Amino acid sequence: MIINGKEYRSVWWENGRLHMIDQNRIPQDFSLMEFTDHLQVADAIRNMNVRGAPAIGAAAAFAMALAAQNATDHGFRAQVRKARELLLSTRPTAVDLQVGVDHVYEQTIKFIPDLAHARQVALLAAQEFANQSAEDCRLIGEQGLHLIPDGSRILTHCNAGALATVDWGTALAVLRLAHRKGRNIFVYVSETRPRHQGSKITAWELQQEGIPHAVIPDSASAFYFWKKEIDLVITGADRVCLNGDIANKIGTYDKAVLAHHHGVPFYIAAPLSTFDFSCAQGSGIPIEFRDSSEITYYGGQITANPGSDVLNPGFDITPADLISGIVTPKGVFKAAEAAQKVQE
Amino acid sequence: MIINGKEYRSVWWENGRLHMIDQNRIPQDFSLMEFTDHLQVADAIRNMNVRGAPAIGAAAAFAMALAAQNATDHGFRAQVRKARELLLSTRPTAVDLQVGVDHVYEQTIKFIPDLAHARQVALLAAQEFANQSAEDCRLIGEQGLHLIPDGSRILTHCNAGALATVDWGTALAVLRLAHRKGRNIFVYVSETRPRHQGSKITAWELQQEGIPHAVIPDSASAFYFWKKEIDLVITGADRVCLNGDIANKIGTYDKAVLAHHHGVPFYIAAPLSTFDFSCAQGSGIPIEFRDSSEITYYGGQITANPGSDVLNPGFDITPADLISGIVTPKGVFKAAEAAQKVQE
Repeated sequence: MIINGKEYRSVWWENGRLHMIDQNRIPQDFSLMEFTDHLQVADAIRNMNVRGAPAIGAAAAFAMALAAQNATDHGFRAQVRKARELLLSTRPTAVDLQVGVDHVYEQTIKFIPDLAHARQVALLAAQEFANQSAEDCRLIGEQGLHLIPDGSRILTHCNAGALATVDWGTALAVLRLAHRKGRNIFVYVSETRPRHQGSKITAWELQQEGIPHAVIPDSASAFYFWKKEIDLVITGADRVCLNGDIANKIGTYDKAVLAHHHGVPFYIAAPLSTFDFSCAQGSGIPIEFRDSSEITYYGGQITANPGSDVLNPGFDITPADLISGIVTPKGVFKAAEAAQKVQE
Repeated sequence: MIINGKEYRSVWWENGRLHMIDQNRIPQDFSLMEFTDHLQVADAIRNMNVRGAPAIGAAAAFAMALAAQNATDHGFRAQVRKARELLLSTRPTAVDLQVGVDHVYEQTIKFIPDLAHARQVALLAAQEFANQSAEDCRLIGEQGLHLIPDGSRILTHCNAGALATVDWGTALAVLRLAHRKGRNIFVYVSETRPRHQGSKITAWELQQEGIPHAVIPDSASAFYFWKKEIDLVITGADRVCLNGDIANKIGTYDKAVLAHHHGVPFYIAAPLSTFDFSCAQGSGIPIEFRDSSEITYYGGQITANPGSDVLNPGFDITPADLISGIVTPKGVFKAAEAAQKVQE
C-alpha cells in the first residue's frame, strides 16, 4: 500500500528486526514499531498494535523467527516450543496466527541439530509466509473484481484492508482494484465498536486510496438497507470452516441477516490461510470475549454505567447459508464448497 | 422513579421554575437543572440534557408555560407563537414535542386577551400534560406485564425508561413492573451509539431498580439471537404512524429484522402522545441527521478518521409487519390496528 507516497507493508523484516505499522495510532499518527524478541510481538498482538487475521499471522511468523534467532544453543527446541505456545495463546479466534506460527515452527525444528541453519530457515519461512499472504490478497482483488459493477454502493465492516493483511487487504483489495480500474463506487463503513477499526482504519485506508466513503454507526446499516442504498456487502473473515460458516468481527452476522432480509448479496473475502480445515462448522469456533473496559471507557471518559455488567464478544459466526460467495485467491466460490475448491 | 431514596420525575415544575434531571450527566453525576425561560429549555432539548420523546414533550410543554409567563402584554400572541416555532424546531422526529407544545399553545391563546388567565392556563395545561404522560407510562407497565414470563431474557435498545418519560418509562415500565412482581428477568442493553443512551442511562436505571442486566455493543445482539439467548425485544418509539410503522432510535430496525429472522417477538411500548394520527406510514416521518462530531470524537479523543465523511441518522423506521405488538396504556395491540384502538 502507498502511504504518504511511499510503499509499505503492515509488517516486514528489515535489518534483522521485525517492523510494523502501529495500528493503534491510526488515524491520528503514522508511527512504526520495531521488535527484537518474540515477547514484545506477543504483547503487540494482544494490545492490537497489529490486528487483522493475516497481519497477525505474519507478525507471529516473524516472531517465531525472532524466537529462533534469540534461542540459545542449549535448550533451543524447548525455547522455540515455548515461544510457539505463548504466541498461540495471544488471540484465540484467528486461524492465521496458528498457521503462521506452525509454518515457521515446523520448518525450523526439522533442521535441529544444525542450529545456524534452523535459525536461517526460520527467517526464510516467515518471509515466505508473509510474501504468500500479500500475493494471496492481490489475487483476491482480481478474483472479486467482477462483483463490483460501476456505481456500486458497498457496505463493509471492521477492517479487511492492507493494514489487516500484509498488503492489499481482503475485502478492500476488491474495492481498491475496482476503484483503480475507474469504477465509480461508494463505501459505507460501519464504525465497528468497541475499537472502531472501521471508522478509524478502514476509513483512513479508503481516504489514502481516494475512494468515496462515509462512516456510519454500526446500527445504522439497517437504515441504509431500508432505503435500498446498499447494493452489496463485503467483509473479511477470521476463520472459514469446512461447511462454509465463517467467524469475523462482532457485527458481521448482523449485516449478513440484514443483507438476506433485503435481498442484497453478502460476500466474504478470505485468503487460504483463513480456512480452517480442522473446523467442521461455525459452532466449533471459540469466541474470544474481550475486556469490559472496551465498552465502559473511551479516551478516559465513561461510555457505560460503571455499576453494570458488560458482555464484549469479539467475534460472531455467520452461517454459510447467508453468504452469497467467498472471494478467494483461486476464485469466488459458494460458501459450502469453498473449503473444497481452494484445496483443488 | 426512586433515586437515592427520593421520588423524582425527569421534568417537573416547582417554585415557578422548570426543573429537570441533566441526562447528559448520567451515570457520572446526578445533577439537576433549573429554567426560567423557554430559550434555555430549547437549548437543553437540542443538547439532549433532556431526551426521550415523552420527556421532551413535557419539557417543551413547560417551556411554553415559561414563554407565556415571560411574554409581555404587548405582542403576547406573537411572542408565544414565536416560542412555539422555536421549540418545534429543536428536534424534528418526536411527535410528543409537537403535541406537548400545541397542547399548551392552543389552551393559552384561547384566553387572549385575558392575559393573566392565559398565563395561568398555560401552566395548568403543561402540568396536565406531564401528569397524563406519567400515568400513561404506569398503565403501559400494567398492560405489558403478561408479555414477560418468569425467566425471560429481554433485549432493549436506547433508553425507554423513566428518564425518557416523565416517570416509569415505556419499555422499562414493563420490565420494572415484571421485576417488582418478583419475575426473574435478564436484560441485554445495547449501548446505542453514538450517544450511549443504552449503556449510560438504561443501564443506570436498571441498576437503580436492581434488575440483572448486561451492556453489549450494538452489533452484538445478533450474536445473542444466534445463541438463542434472547426471548423477546422491547423498545420505545418516537412516533407511531396510522399503519403501525414506527420511528425510534437508530438501530431499532436492525433489532426488528434480527428478531424476525430468529422468530423472536418484537414489541414497541408507546404512550398515546407518541401516536401521530397525521402520519399515514413510516416513509412520511422526517429523519433527523445529527452532527458528524458525535461519530468522530468521544471525550476529546478521535473515534473516526477526521478526513472521512460521516452519516449520522438519529432514527430509523421499523415497518408494522416486523412488530409483534404495540404496548399502550389501553392494551397491547397489533401494530396495524394500534392507532385505531387507542382512539376507541
